[in-house]
Amino acid sequence: MKISDILIGIRQKDPVAIAKAISMVENRKKDYTRLLEKIYPLPGRAFKIGITGSPGSGKSSLIDRMINGLKTRGFNIAVLAVDPSSPITGGALLGDRLRMIQHSNDANVFIRSIANRGHLGGLSLSTHEIIDLLQAAGKEIIIIETVGVGQSEVDIVNVADVVLYVLNPGSGDEIQIFKAGIIEIADIFVVNKADLGGSDLKISEIKNYFSLAAKNPLIFPTSAREDQGIEELLSALFKFREEEKGRIEEKTAAVKKNYVEKIVADRLKTEIEQNPSIRAIWRDSADANPFQLAESIYRIIQTGGSHDKKD
Amino acid sequence: MKISDILIGIRQKDPVAIAKAISMVENRKKDYTRLLEKIYPLPGRAFKIGITGSPGSGKSSLIDRMINGLKTRGFNIAVLAVDPSSPITGGALLGDRLRMIQHSNDANVFIRSIANRGHLGGLSLSTHEIIDLLQAAGKEIIIIETVGVGQSEVDIVNVADVVLYVLNPGSGDEIQIFKAGIIEIADIFVVNKADLGGSDLKISEIKNYFSLAAKNPLIFPTSAREDQGIEELLSALFKFREEEKGRIEEKTAAVKKNYVEKIVADRLKTEIEQNPSIRAIWRDSADANPFQLAESIYRIIQTGGSHDKKD
Repeated sequence: MKISDILIGIRQKDPVAIAKAISMVENRKKDYTRLLEKIYPLPGRAFKIGITGSPGSGKSSLIDRMINGLKTRGFNIAVLAVDPSSPITGGALLGDRLRMIQHSNDANVFIRSIANRGHLGGLSLSTHEIIDLLQAAGKEIIIIETVGVGQSEVDIVNVADVVLYVLNPGSGDEIQIFKAGIIEIADIFVVNKADLGGSDLKISEIKNYFSLAAKNPLIFPTSAREDQGIEELLSALFKFREEEKGRIEEKTAAVKKNYVEKIVADRLKTEIEQNPSIRAIWRDSADANPFQLAESIYRIIQTGGSHDKKD
Repeated sequence: MKISDILIGIRQKDPVAIAKAISMVENRKKDYTRLLEKIYPLPGRAFKIGITGSPGSGKSSLIDRMINGLKTRGFNIAVLAVDPSSPITGGALLGDRLRMIQHSNDANVFIRSIANRGHLGGLSLSTHEIIDLLQAAGKEIIIIETVGVGQSEVDIVNVADVVLYVLNPGSGDEIQIFKAGIIEIADIFVVNKADLGGSDLKISEIKNYFSLAAKNPLIFPTSAREDQGIEELLSALFKFREEEKGRIEEKTAAVKKNYVEKIVADRLKTEIEQNPSIRAIWRDSADANPFQLAESIYRIIQTGGSHDKKD
């Protein structure tokens, strides 16, 4: 499939073209930047919902129910499940996604697992790029799911407009919430599996914790199994989007700025690695004072050190 | 205390001066770079031992016992406990350190908790700088402890020569090990609390897991409470240091390179944020194609965009 054909497919919201484009970007295939450069300006801005929480908290089932409610509202939806890439369990976690398979024949619901390739540093550049691809393909709602094992759920905040943290009655998630900094990134807490009982207790526990930080979190009990509380949660999400419009716009701008800066930083890193004068510094003075080394490298960059290569 | 006095104190291995210097660096106090620039070249290279594992696995008690064995060997030791900075539990975790207080009057054992300030992105620049301060103060062994909640333990690998992962018989840590990428960073596994029984089972479980990845990990059972297995562990550490000398040197060089690149990147980030031409780009064309934005910013940097400010 040629890039021009993929681009036409994306504009026509063709799932095959979208899938192809995501694979190109995810695997850094030749010409993927040529593809990316051509998807701008984006036709619209999707509502990006980040969902995180411990394994087993029922995120996928919850998303499944949310998709039903969002379809009823007429939205064009995408789900991006970001898996930590481990050589061993990498594939196993994808099993969860099977629960969402009932939507897989629906042209308006695009579901995709991506590996968290920057696995030593949270979400990678490509996550941001894939979200832009989905927006280019007219997706109006993008749900981004991560397994709650640390940095990934913190990085979600960098791409999502609203962040849900899913936990269960009887879980000991509070420790995780506080240690991993979830308290600072989650906008809405969902006590899922409320049908098991004990969700009131869990809600008041969370409130107590938050009162220590003088915060008053939004908390919703749901039961994905019994399809309870989903409508209330969806309404709360759209209310949040409306009420926090200004803050979301600021965040979107900051996310984009961050993305652009990462592109610049990536290019500079390549430059630094390939520049012959900088390579000579590493070869000859690796034992020197790091501040002096940094100063020398900085000078070379600023005086157009790459001049001898191209331009 | 003046910087020149702090520097003299560091060279004389004075714990008060070391503590003062660490505070300056940790809190980015005025002139901290002036202090740092003057500690090079370092008088020697410490053996840096990273220790991570779930809360409650007994890391601090284990370190306490290890210190005893290292003192007997005549080493000048430092322990750096890196706490995730959470507004609420930040202080609470420090309680663990109290267990090591028996060494606190020993001039050859320096113990310090530091907050993981870059808490949304693992270990910060300052961790590297504090390790260099400790090396400047003649520390021969530096133990770096982190609570295993995600990215921090992965980032330890960037500063330590050897990484220990502490777990217990009967723990369900395997999931954490694989999901968080510990398998890729830990050099030695310690099954602590072996006195509880079941450590043989746990060891063979770990071996089984690793055989899936065709790896054969070093695993040692210990009991901090009964002071068992500590000598064997210490011997293994020094053997590792000897046998992996080449690899450790490569890693040290890579760590330094990474540090220098971060200094350069930090400076460039400041430059990008303050440069009037780049600010104008953000103001006027925030909606533009991110690749075009990156290209424009890159050009400004490479043509000495900061020229109008200083120089």
